Amino acid sequence: MTIIHHETLKHWIAEVFITCGFTAENANLSAQVLVEADLRGIDSHGVARLSGYVRLIEKKRINSNPNFAVSRRKKTMIHLDADSGIGLLSAPYAMKLAIEATNDYGSGWVGISNSNHFGIAAYHSMMALEHDYIGFSMTNASPLVTPANGKQRMLGTNPICVAIPTNQETPFVLDMATAAAANGKLEIAERVNKPIPKGWAITKDGENTTDAKALKNGGMLLPLGSNQEGGFHKGYGLGAWVDIFSGVITGANFGPWVPPFVSFLDPLPNLPGNGIGHFVGCWDIDGFQDKETSKSKMDLWIQTFKNTLPLDSNQPVLIPGEIEHHLKLSRQLEGISLVDAVCKDIEQLSYELGIPSPL
Amino acid sequence: MTIIHHETLKHWIAEVFITCGFTAENANLSAQVLVEADLRGIDSHGVARLSGYVRLIEKKRINSNPNFAVSRRKKTMIHLDADSGIGLLSAPYAMKLAIEATNDYGSGWVGISNSNHFGIAAYHSMMALEHDYIGFSMTNASPLVTPANGKQRMLGTNPICVAIPTNQETPFVLDMATAAAANGKLEIAERVNKPIPKGWAITKDGENTTDAKALKNGGMLLPLGSNQEGGFHKGYGLGAWVDIFSGVITGANFGPWVPPFVSFLDPLPNLPGNGIGHFVGCWDIDGFQDKETSKSKMDLWIQTFKNTLPLDSNQPVLIPGEIEHHLKLSRQLEGISLVDAVCKDIEQLSYELGIPSPL
Repeated sequence: MTIIHHETLKHWIAEVFITCGFTAENANLSAQVLVEADLRGIDSHGVARLSGYVRLIEKKRINSNPNFAVSRRKKTMIHLDADSGIGLLSAPYAMKLAIEATNDYGSGWVGISNSNHFGIAAYHSMMALEHDYIGFSMTNASPLVTPANGKQRMLGTNPICVAIPTNQETPFVLDMATAAAANGKLEIAERVNKPIPKGWAITKDGENTTDAKALKNGGMLLPLGSNQEGGFHKGYGLGAWVDIFSGVITGANFGPWVPPFVSFLDPLPNLPGNGIGHFVGCWDIDGFQDKETSKSKMDLWIQTFKNTLPLDSNQPVLIPGEIEHHLKLSRQLEGISLVDAVCKDIEQLSYELGIPSPL
Repeated sequence: MTIIHHETLKHWIAEVFITCGFTAENANLSAQVLVEADLRGIDSHGVARLSGYVRLIEKKRINSNPNFAVSRRKKTMIHLDADSGIGLLSAPYAMKLAIEATNDYGSGWVGISNSNHFGIAAYHSMMALEHDYIGFSMTNASPLVTPANGKQRMLGTNPICVAIPTNQETPFVLDMATAAAANGKLEIAERVNKPIPKGWAITKDGENTTDAKALKNGGMLLPLGSNQEGGFHKGYGLGAWVDIFSGVITGANFGPWVPPFVSFLDPLPNLPGNGIGHFVGCWDIDGFQDKETSKSKMDLWIQTFKNTLPLDSNQPVLIPGEIEHHLKLSRQLEGISLVDAVCKDIEQLSYELGIPSPL
């Protein structure tokens, strides 16, 4: 385990992207989105993903110098072609368009095609908060999750993210995968050589499994709800919604055709769309009632829910986004701890690209 | 078990509402929304709820002749005060406003306060389909669900509904409670004297239970995900999102303050808002790409997912809304079957209100 200051890490990530052909501005923003994941404790989506992006850039599957273009628009509905660029850039670009549309019309929506993985959804949704707007974001991703009653990888872990402004309290930030557990959790279990709970994954033959290597052995993740009695048709329905909004209505790929994140797997032939897709947007709460009223009521909502009678008095009821907010505050002060595999990755990338290691 | 033709049922329900002081037009629409639930197989939300609405009208908690008023608007964001009217009317009224806003701006959103239960969410979302728009609806409801790690009723079963247009295929209609199981499922288990699966409910002391009477004994429902390993913080997060959109930002009540549906329980004192709340709206898919392209791609999406390798070859993978669509077609032909308790309710209401029984 190595501790690194977030600014050091960000500076180094930006150097990596510049070496890969990004402009300084694009490299800085991409680095910021990744480091935000590490700060908020979503370690699977931060610097741990950097080498994956670099391999895709090397393979020209990510365009290091994209021209984002609005290709169609109907006032609040905007379509963005991301020109094979990285989602770490196309999604914030799209959120800016959505915020401008919201300034003009009270809400704004951007469907993005021809993009690549966008990091943590929360980064994009939270851009709305400084305008006192509600932020919304979704993305599809490489297929790892089976539909309810199926045994085939058809959906990504397809997150839904909603960020809602508050007055005094920490904003409400729901950022959830629509699978029972995202693959990052399996990787953690594998690293410490522990079984995973039943209900997270099945084998390629559809058997329940507690093997943390289930995905590596051709298995798949289960939707939120885990089984018929647990309501896994709901988790499947949510993942499907995300896939359709991100892929079908934007002109990106969807379902089994979403291109893999790992560079050693090629996309399927005869793709129905372009790249992967995202859907982002905002609502202006001031359109319904005075925004100060709504923000104060959000404070009351949060205080009320934090005071829910707990199952275990040592484990209070939490508000979505609360843990991540506190982690960010402490990691900003105390640094970000990196596991050995990530440190090795950082050394390797530094060596390959000829830039000084930050460790 | 008694079989009734849906038109007969609808006519009788309309008579009930007229006797309660509704205009003929309002009575017909309210009856249509309820019968749509019975046709689609959501029996808990159809005529089975009618006596509940009647009792609330008798107690003047539902205003039989409301004036719906837009009290604030910012182009695509519209606030509707439902004047204590029934949600069966306020939500379709709001969807019409949302559709008009979508005609003008590409999307449209209505936050409704001072309302009452709105029946099935799918009715409202599906109004968008004939315009080739995506429909969206949510409502909060009387508290029955505990937050993750809590043991207190703080949220309703708070549904999320998304309806997406297709070309040849049946539309995609996701209409899901954010609890592991809605209370209607517990009622069915109780009626046939069966235990419920673990993961649906806990007792008032927070113990896991398989007792179908758990709610009647002061227990509560669990969020989708059921427990920590199953990711019940996600079900809680979704239910919270619905509560905030329906209640906090609209000026309706929220959380533990949402007024009970049953007339023998009074609302809590010092309510922070007015009535219960809903959130509805639409997106025009034509704003992103030609709508015929999107609808054909939806067909491909549906065909692809129906062909998912099934866990059990007798149980194919389904599309959200598929079962309900087929039930509606068969019930339109073969009639709606009513359980004895509902028949008794119908006889009783007919007697009380002095209208002929339809049975």
